[in-house]
Amino acid sequence: MSLVRDPSEIARWDDETDVLVVGLGAAGAAAALDAAATGAETLVLERAGGGGGTSAMSGGVLYLGGGTPLQQACGFEDSPEAMFRYLMASCGDAPDEEKTRRYCEGSLEHYDWLVEKGVPFKPVFYHGCSGEPPTDDGLVWSGSERAWPFCEAAEPAPRGHVPQMEHQAGPLLMQSLVSATEASPARVATGHRAVALVQEPDGSVVGAVCESFGETRNLRARRGLVLTTGGFIQNRAMLEAHAPRARRCKFRVGAEGDDGSGIALGVAAGGATLHMDALSISLPVTQPWGLKRGILVNGQGQRFINEDAYYGRLGEYALLRHDGRAWLVVDDAVFEKPDYPRELAAVGESPGELECELDLPAGSLDTTLALYNRHAERGEDPLFHKQADYLQPLSRPPFGAFDCTSTSSLYAAFTLGGLHTDPDGRVLDPAGDPIPGLFAAGRASSGLAVGGYSSGLSLGDGTYFGRRAGACAARNGAP
Amino acid sequence: MSLVRDPSEIARWDDETDVLVVGLGAAGAAAALDAAATGAETLVLERAGGGGGTSAMSGGVLYLGGGTPLQQACGFEDSPEAMFRYLMASCGDAPDEEKTRRYCEGSLEHYDWLVEKGVPFKPVFYHGCSGEPPTDDGLVWSGSERAWPFCEAAEPAPRGHVPQMEHQAGPLLMQSLVSATEASPARVATGHRAVALVQEPDGSVVGAVCESFGETRNLRARRGLVLTTGGFIQNRAMLEAHAPRARRCKFRVGAEGDDGSGIALGVAAGGATLHMDALSISLPVTQPWGLKRGILVNGQGQRFINEDAYYGRLGEYALLRHDGRAWLVVDDAVFEKPDYPRELAAVGESPGELECELDLPAGSLDTTLALYNRHAERGEDPLFHKQADYLQPLSRPPFGAFDCTSTSSLYAAFTLGGLHTDPDGRVLDPAGDPIPGLFAAGRASSGLAVGGYSSGLSLGDGTYFGRRAGACAARNGAP
Repeated sequence: MSLVRDPSEIARWDDETDVLVVGLGAAGAAAALDAAATGAETLVLERAGGGGGTSAMSGGVLYLGGGTPLQQACGFEDSPEAMFRYLMASCGDAPDEEKTRRYCEGSLEHYDWLVEKGVPFKPVFYHGCSGEPPTDDGLVWSGSERAWPFCEAAEPAPRGHVPQMEHQAGPLLMQSLVSATEASPARVATGHRAVALVQEPDGSVVGAVCESFGETRNLRARRGLVLTTGGFIQNRAMLEAHAPRARRCKFRVGAEGDDGSGIALGVAAGGATLHMDALSISLPVTQPWGLKRGILVNGQGQRFINEDAYYGRLGEYALLRHDGRAWLVVDDAVFEKPDYPRELAAVGESPGELECELDLPAGSLDTTLALYNRHAERGEDPLFHKQADYLQPLSRPPFGAFDCTSTSSLYAAFTLGGLHTDPDGRVLDPAGDPIPGLFAAGRASSGLAVGGYSSGLSLGDGTYFGRRAGACAARNGAP
Repeated sequence: MSLVRDPSEIARWDDETDVLVVGLGAAGAAAALDAAATGAETLVLERAGGGGGTSAMSGGVLYLGGGTPLQQACGFEDSPEAMFRYLMASCGDAPDEEKTRRYCEGSLEHYDWLVEKGVPFKPVFYHGCSGEPPTDDGLVWSGSERAWPFCEAAEPAPRGHVPQMEHQAGPLLMQSLVSATEASPARVATGHRAVALVQEPDGSVVGAVCESFGETRNLRARRGLVLTTGGFIQNRAMLEAHAPRARRCKFRVGAEGDDGSGIALGVAAGGATLHMDALSISLPVTQPWGLKRGILVNGQGQRFINEDAYYGRLGEYALLRHDGRAWLVVDDAVFEKPDYPRELAAVGESPGELECELDLPAGSLDTTLALYNRHAERGEDPLFHKQADYLQPLSRPPFGAFDCTSTSSLYAAFTLGGLHTDPDGRVLDPAGDPIPGLFAAGRASSGLAVGGYSSGLSLGDGTYFGRRAGACAARNGAP
């Protein structure tokens, strides 16, 4: 059945609104709130029985900075410029400079908006084992800001803003945003799945065909339709087509609805995509952080990264550059019980015993450790520039290796590529022109990170650019 | 200006035909020939002053096998099954199994077709320094068939079929195919650039708007339109959007016309794409092949690949996994003058001197060479399994390093991603349904290789699936 319909195929409109938002996760709520705030009639569709989506299953971290009240309360200095430099350096090969600039400059206002919508942040800094704190503290390190090479690009500051809830703050974030949406003039229709867009011969999108409890409903959008349907980590065919290596990750981060449906609708309507191969791949193997004193080695027994880099970078390097073959090697001095239940793949009285157990090439681990120790004794790491705090020779037997292979360990993946949008959320065609009436935000679109993921960027850009998409749709696409 | 027009915008058709082929490279010629062979009226547009495109600038190698007359004449055995297993193992993360299967099974017939169209192959095997022979010999190794891990996946056979012309056979290949096209009933219109597709409200593509010497011409395609416009290596914005790391390659393989125009037209009409990040990246640093006895090291002084792998694999690993930081290290015993003018980045009496010259971490190269030599003395390479022929300890001073960094050396890149087509060349929408009237072949579409390039695959799949696209268009899209 076609993903795009001509208006002549629509016998009648079952409902209509100014702005139609498809999907009620973080981006959808933000779009609906700021569309409704302009006075535009707004209707939000959600295919599930209630709002929340993948955002509600997440850690709830929002990457914000530039000197927010929370950063200040916790005693950290930051600037939009430092944040911009970090993001441009860390977010993959070709991040969108204009979006990144606007996001950094708008971060303080966006923080205030979130607080106003009822998202609480406890003004306490959490320093410890994770980018998603087990406490209800508000601020954490959630990226590679202090790690090489990013520490050279910008003054580090912690920018992970976590709603006040223990262990996992996504549910609280979405409870706040969905409540705010329900309290707004926007209407919410759950159990509605958009299956096609209605597009005029001139290319304008003027509505959607939905399925709801076995019935087809045609919904007209007078001013604009905003796709906030999430990424495609749950769509096997799309992963094969665009990001085949994600299939090797055992843990796919996303609600069932992250099947790329909105991206497909946008593409069928002639929308261009960006960075469809880009992935966030987290490998949280250095929790607690003392384990950063170990070394990560690949299938050749070689180190391949500074172990103090953030999990998003560790996972990307291990999976994409080293085929998901990695082990974290420790000695008796740096051994700690890790947070994640990971298998201890091998123990040995010497590096040689360990490499034999792991079936690594003879002499490889011995060679790697000898070179690492020689430098670590002087507090140096000329290969990968790990911070001195985590540099100590690994020489006290027994030696152990934690299994960080993609076949056994936790690689948490979701997709970052999606529809090509401008900073106002307008979906662009391959010539760079907006498709009239069509908008997108959140992971249905390509956002700030196109690699090198720091926690909080998707909730951050999803809400920030979701707001802009909703407001621009309410303006009929006017800038 | 919109890339898609409604038929109501077309005042009159300036010309019409059954099958309209856009682009006269190898894929376009093949499409036109097999469309015209069915009796369908066929018109080929070429934006340049004459046919040829990127194919005419290439080495002219066609990857064929399964036991062609040329392979047999040269004394090599091969089978479609061995060829299939090699391609599925080597062509990237998620090659198209159905297309690969058909290509391997159709290879003998396709060889005969090429010969019939006037492409000459001299029945002499060339063994030497390159996948593109300096002689006019017909058969070469043009992939990693004998290298690990592919030698374990399938019985190796040389499959590079080279038209009989010294140094560079692309001009001869295209001279043959363009002459055959001109001798066929198909018409050719040069100086015609397609700027928009004409699409009915039901999604059918029924023609194209062209520009020709300052005039706009509307061309109707009664049965089908075939996009054979090439890849997008010459389009900076598209590279940023889909394959940003290609920008680091100094040599971009493609005619000016490889600007992604046909891919953009197909996307604007609602076509899906596949593997838009995929690249062929060749690093021809081991010519003559004796240089495979050297070792390639990265910015940490570590080996990262078996040096006997084909250039397409060397380039991909060096650029995508090691940031284009690589050097080929030799000793006095294996030193040879390389074919390509590359800078000798450093010379030293010891590995330590060399690593110092190259600014590699202290002790890194020493460590790497010691481990390599220890294994090479026994004819082994447990890290990367290089063939024994190329394994010998590197221990006779002086030592030298050839510069294989992307800033200085020759990385030859072109794009592999494109429109999603089925084996009959029909362009598919995101739901997997054909867009009526729209076809594509060659590098405007995603073909056999989505990584791990072997020479000859693009001319091979471009002509093979080009023929199928032309014939299917002539059948009005019927299977």
